[in-house]
Amino acid sequence: MNELRRDYVKNRWVSISSALGWKPKDFPTMKVSAEAGQSGFCPFCEGNEEVTPPEIAAFRKEDSQVNGPGWLVRTIPNKFTAFSMEGSLEERKSGVFHRCNGLGKHEVVIETPLHGIDFHDLDMEHMEMTVAMFKMRYNDLAKDERLKYIQIYKNRGMFGGASLGHTHSQIIGLPFVPQENAGLIQYYKDHGECLICTMLKQELEAEERIVYQDEHFVVFCPYASRFAYETWIVPKRHTEHFGDIAEPEEKALAVLCKRISLAVVSSLNNASYNFIINTAPVVKSPYEPGYHWYMEFTPRLLVSHGFEIATGVYMNPVPPETAASTIREALSE
Amino acid sequence: MNELRRDYVKNRWVSISSALGWKPKDFPTMKVSAEAGQSGFCPFCEGNEEVTPPEIAAFRKEDSQVNGPGWLVRTIPNKFTAFSMEGSLEERKSGVFHRCNGLGKHEVVIETPLHGIDFHDLDMEHMEMTVAMFKMRYNDLAKDERLKYIQIYKNRGMFGGASLGHTHSQIIGLPFVPQENAGLIQYYKDHGECLICTMLKQELEAEERIVYQDEHFVVFCPYASRFAYETWIVPKRHTEHFGDIAEPEEKALAVLCKRISLAVVSSLNNASYNFIINTAPVVKSPYEPGYHWYMEFTPRLLVSHGFEIATGVYMNPVPPETAASTIREALSE
Repeated sequence: MNELRRDYVKNRWVSISSALGWKPKDFPTMKVSAEAGQSGFCPFCEGNEEVTPPEIAAFRKEDSQVNGPGWLVRTIPNKFTAFSMEGSLEERKSGVFHRCNGLGKHEVVIETPLHGIDFHDLDMEHMEMTVAMFKMRYNDLAKDERLKYIQIYKNRGMFGGASLGHTHSQIIGLPFVPQENAGLIQYYKDHGECLICTMLKQELEAEERIVYQDEHFVVFCPYASRFAYETWIVPKRHTEHFGDIAEPEEKALAVLCKRISLAVVSSLNNASYNFIINTAPVVKSPYEPGYHWYMEFTPRLLVSHGFEIATGVYMNPVPPETAASTIREALSE
Repeated sequence: MNELRRDYVKNRWVSISSALGWKPKDFPTMKVSAEAGQSGFCPFCEGNEEVTPPEIAAFRKEDSQVNGPGWLVRTIPNKFTAFSMEGSLEERKSGVFHRCNGLGKHEVVIETPLHGIDFHDLDMEHMEMTVAMFKMRYNDLAKDERLKYIQIYKNRGMFGGASLGHTHSQIIGLPFVPQENAGLIQYYKDHGECLICTMLKQELEAEERIVYQDEHFVVFCPYASRFAYETWIVPKRHTEHFGDIAEPEEKALAVLCKRISLAVVSSLNNASYNFIINTAPVVKSPYEPGYHWYMEFTPRLLVSHGFEIATGVYMNPVPPETAASTIREALSE
């Protein structure tokens, strides 16, 4: 199969091909360890709280002290960041040289005090607390009127861009709305309905790319997957903001985070991956309808190459129908 | 320095930061060899012509035979591709499932018959023939009315997406115009002038990001560089299509390809990189003004991570002012 498929979220074409017939083990980055060698001192480990900036939030054992040991999930400012919440947004323009200050907030969610536990190894208590922390931080950051968009994401493994081995996620509050998902607004304008709801309906009818579903979520490899084995977790309930996730959904999402991350690493030879949570901007006005939050797992089996950088057209050597069958099988094991 | 800069070509913000203070040796991908281990049989070597598809074009020694040894630069179809020139473009749409056949042409330009010679090692004869081959293939592909855009690019090293060690570039003729450089059209609509010409003027005035200039080209690290040490080679003459490059420009470009690729690998610890040639679509109508061809070298020192995938906002830890000074110094050595 060789075809181009339209990605309506990104408003781009994706090239889908099975010409190479690649199986998980055939990807070149597999030949390099997915985990950059980690040794020596880890600032994210329990007991090393004094070397990180003071915590922003934490779930802790009852008798433990703020900024001391005894935490279960802990959020701290990212020390190595281009963003800081100083002052207000200042934009300066001189012809085509146009800049603004790096106003924003960058946080790290450390999902376990233990080194060597991977995200997919977390017990359900930690996984639930991680999802609860995401929600709590999202809703807290949303209160700051200087922030317009909140991006939650994880970099796992060397080819996912991870720089520290101790499992953690990141949250960035941005002073502008990125245009990456502008297709959602466009689709709503053109059709008067939610693109993600429409996709859900069509994917469920088509069946072949569905990985799993429960009461609250559908898991599938989308029709126009940019990445090999790309897998989405989409809430059935039309909800714009991740921060509006309901409690039963939180629990269900925690279960899926565990199961999908485990299925990805087990079926894809311990692959690097990212997950990202797509959500509506937190801008109050002008209000633009069309968003529907969802979570996206992107395994990182190939580095992006010149053609993708030049054209924005991704080349995916694994049809999502094949990908769904691989992830589905791993899930049932 | 922590700031966001506006990339008018891509219509996106780029985050530029010197907070990490990273020197070339500090990038994590440096710790892995830039070249995937290559051993055994190479289909691109002289003498192995029978295992590749028949050549499309070649510069050859006078007494040599087509599809035999004796070539200097050789262009063949890419066997491992999602594109083929069978029939015409067929688009099919069913709700949000929208696809077209992989109509297109994918070629490989092998820049030397010798294995183990890197792009920056090419002698000037091969470098000039490579540029001449790019021009010849561009103008030939442009004649096919089914093709709308021609992308010339190189993947060098493992983190540039190279899959074969024998140095080569690639050319893809696409059945649609990618939207990646739509900012050029937008700028022309808004200002009635060419964005690239305007950038050239402002960069020359500002001076600090200029790496080099000669009669025909300006080399600089652009104000809103997405990649650390990103370096552009821009023709001074406003020319939309790469295929319209004049002979003295061809010669000058060959010299710059040699010098810039050498400066990149020598100053950046043998970095992986891509180069891409941005150019106007070959669509005859509707004609959209605003394009100006240029060549872009993108060193690949960091893999893209979750935040970049999610938002399209690149994080560049090396201010282009620093980058220009590094590349300038390497160039003068």
